[in-house]
Amino acid sequence: MKPAEIARVEPLTATAFAAFGEVIAPENAARRIAINAGTAERFHDLAKIEPGPDGRTTVSIFRGQPRPMPFEVTMLERHPLGSQAFMPLSGRPYLVVVAPPGEQIDPASLRFFQANAGQGVNFAPGVWHHPLLALGGQSDFLVIDRSGPGDNCDEQNLPHSFLINAD
Amino acid sequence: MKPAEIARVEPLTATAFAAFGEVIAPENAARRIAINAGTAERFHDLAKIEPGPDGRTTVSIFRGQPRPMPFEVTMLERHPLGSQAFMPLSGRPYLVVVAPPGEQIDPASLRFFQANAGQGVNFAPGVWHHPLLALGGQSDFLVIDRSGPGDNCDEQNLPHSFLINAD
Repeated sequence: MKPAEIARVEPLTATAFAAFGEVIAPENAARRIAINAGTAERFHDLAKIEPGPDGRTTVSIFRGQPRPMPFEVTMLERHPLGSQAFMPLSGRPYLVVVAPPGEQIDPASLRFFQANAGQGVNFAPGVWHHPLLALGGQSDFLVIDRSGPGDNCDEQNLPHSFLINAD
Repeated sequence: MKPAEIARVEPLTATAFAAFGEVIAPENAARRIAINAGTAERFHDLAKIEPGPDGRTTVSIFRGQPRPMPFEVTMLERHPLGSQAFMPLSGRPYLVVVAPPGEQIDPASLRFFQANAGQGVNFAPGVWHHPLLALGGQSDFLVIDRSGPGDNCDEQNLPHSFLINAD
């Protein structure tokens, strides 16, 4: 593998992430609905959940160990058949690395985002992404993804690596 | 309505809640899987998500205002067509009030649970439950439920109320 390129890490916003899926946070709701006699507010329909062909939606918890910095990104994975959403439960930020769908990852297309503790992400089916990158301490995430028939995980090594240096 | 009966509040456990759905927490996983080259653990398939007939699974955030104590439970609701899961995001406990499915709620069948900040709940379709009962401060919850055709919310008043006095 060629020497690493330095990753440019951006703050995670719904607009910047739109090509890859959704940012799950109250401020991104198209509809806010007062419910329960006004004692609660519903920020409605924040992620396009796709269980895919013959799939069902499953809810799991991922417990990620924090990644040492600087971190070298050498590969990405994708789930071609279904979406995969992560919602942080441990009050810590984390990193999100994505590239658009397609058979061959274009390294120039990679995007690097720092998510804050109140933001979840939902990867659309086929979006290349790095496995969970927890920061700062062991972190739990609620994960909404797909169970079902078929091969739903591809991995691909990058032609050169990227070095991330997050706070 | 007749005078209130004092509610007996139990700690939330998977066993005690089994007739109503699932408690979403790592310790309740039937399968734990090491993933991402050993940097994370997957606590797999913690909730039976049911989008129901012609429904799709939606992800929303509910922001609940804390309930004043003692709180009087006078009604329950149910979603006959789909499941509804709540995962706390704000690090605070909350209350869960449920009764088994059926056309008429039997007040003797009500159960009152205090969930801790690390426990989510998934109500099976048709399970009677009280709207969100946040405690201690404004609390966000990730909610996984159903959008789709048909009437998916029934409410029923109880023949007598129950008084909850949580910490």
